[in-house]
Amino acid sequence: MSAFTGLSAFPITPCDAAGRLDEEGLRRLLAPLVEAGVDSIGVLGSTGTYAYLTRETRCRAVAVAAEAVAGRVPLLVGIGALRTDEAVRLARDAREAGASAGLLAPVSYTPLTEKEVFDHFAAVAGEGGLPLVIYDNPATTHFRFTPALIGRLARLPGVAAVKCPGPSPEAVARTVAELRGTVPGGFPLGFSGDWHATEAMIAGGVAWYSVAAGLFPRPCQEIVRAVQAGETDRARDLDAAMTPLWDLFKAHSSLRIVHGLAEPLGLGRPVLPRPLQPLPEAVRAQALATVRAMGLA
Amino acid sequence: MSAFTGLSAFPITPCDAAGRLDEEGLRRLLAPLVEAGVDSIGVLGSTGTYAYLTRETRCRAVAVAAEAVAGRVPLLVGIGALRTDEAVRLARDAREAGASAGLLAPVSYTPLTEKEVFDHFAAVAGEGGLPLVIYDNPATTHFRFTPALIGRLARLPGVAAVKCPGPSPEAVARTVAELRGTVPGGFPLGFSGDWHATEAMIAGGVAWYSVAAGLFPRPCQEIVRAVQAGETDRARDLDAAMTPLWDLFKAHSSLRIVHGLAEPLGLGRPVLPRPLQPLPEAVRAQALATVRAMGLA
Repeated sequence: MSAFTGLSAFPITPCDAAGRLDEEGLRRLLAPLVEAGVDSIGVLGSTGTYAYLTRETRCRAVAVAAEAVAGRVPLLVGIGALRTDEAVRLARDAREAGASAGLLAPVSYTPLTEKEVFDHFAAVAGEGGLPLVIYDNPATTHFRFTPALIGRLARLPGVAAVKCPGPSPEAVARTVAELRGTVPGGFPLGFSGDWHATEAMIAGGVAWYSVAAGLFPRPCQEIVRAVQAGETDRARDLDAAMTPLWDLFKAHSSLRIVHGLAEPLGLGRPVLPRPLQPLPEAVRAQALATVRAMGLA
Repeated sequence: MSAFTGLSAFPITPCDAAGRLDEEGLRRLLAPLVEAGVDSIGVLGSTGTYAYLTRETRCRAVAVAAEAVAGRVPLLVGIGALRTDEAVRLARDAREAGASAGLLAPVSYTPLTEKEVFDHFAAVAGEGGLPLVIYDNPATTHFRFTPALIGRLARLPGVAAVKCPGPSPEAVARTVAELRGTVPGGFPLGFSGDWHATEAMIAGGVAWYSVAAGLFPRPCQEIVRAVQAGETDRARDLDAAMTPLWDLFKAHSSLRIVHGLAEPLGLGRPVLPRPLQPLPEAVRAQALATVRAMGLA
């Protein structure tokens, strides 16, 4: 097992309305993840709203997380930024604060060319001093990686793994095989998009970068262990049991759902960064009722 | 004439590789725009790479521009930010530094809902103290305004105008009519996307938010004056004469072309914020030859 296989749990970063970190809240989110024995923790991912936080807050969140996990779980840290020099600074900050690897998304305002993205990754991998996970999230970055570009990036010194969006059921076998064919042998292919992750692992993915696991690590871990044991029917049954949560994620976004559940689950009173708005109260009540009915809370 | 009609020229913000403002370079870019008598200047637009600059640099750029124009031309200033509170701070900074209005784009990382965008604009209009131009730029923000949302935003106190992407030739009459039908009477509809702007003005737009005018104000001004005088044939002929420049913009992006032309035109040595890369030398040479052949330089 490496830091880039198995279950990676992505918690929210609890902050107040002004974007100040709730350090105690972060510790309370992390403790059950460590206790459950997840394979890695992804702090400051998209679910951790990294794009909305200052460099200082991001640095502090990594330090708090590193202290909380105390070397028991690898920490993957979102270091994406619009500017290359800022991403390099964030990589160095994260390394010094105790990160095991950086999650680098090609955050964009002006649309980026393939060459610009390649050179951005090469610069951050070369100057940041932190192993990188290629963070492919077209819904937020609006950059579309080709398999060929992922293959070229995977050969850069310092690029350690890739986190791809989970392919749709129709495309999963072809997409995973295509990615596998483009990266070096043994390069860790991981997937996000919780409702597509089980099939992506069955098709050959070795990691699940999971929003749900940031709140509910155990049922996600059972799925990963089942896939790893070759028990695909069991993995699919366990995944099917999560359908009510996946339906909430699809309808309201996984970020908004897990953020909205934190307070009723006794995990502080985190506030989403405006302009992002909290779930309407009725949806939050429905989400809470759903996870209770599923036995998750 | 208001600050939201006629020709608005959008210069680059000249910076070094570290994102530090070249103040003298900015003054040299602005002087010919003032001299040409453009109707407004848009500093820190997408062409002004606002998204890549710190709050301090943005504030300083507005102050330098305000001093340079000395009240002779209204200054429109990009105040977009991922966080609502930051956009409010940028609006206040810009107002204090001498801006006439703020250009507010719904910059996003997590995709935004219509309600989130509406409330973001309401908050910045209400708390920022600066008249706002709705800045609709789906290529960079990835948010798509509906005409109905623009109509609702146009009725918010403090929202003064809208800058829309220039519709394609097939859609221009219908799109401009639809927008005109949704905003209050007299609300200034303006357009960007230089190669579509002439037809958008002929169809009823009252402003052209122009990248080309940031370097070449006079030929753009002739087009606007021709439209305003009802000389549509002449406006179209003048626009057709700009086709070689529009073709460069379409092939390489308007930002990269005007940025690449600044140095050979004697306007300092601005550096694009990495990961954005300069034009390949051959394209820059081609662009320079093109604008020379057009008599623009």
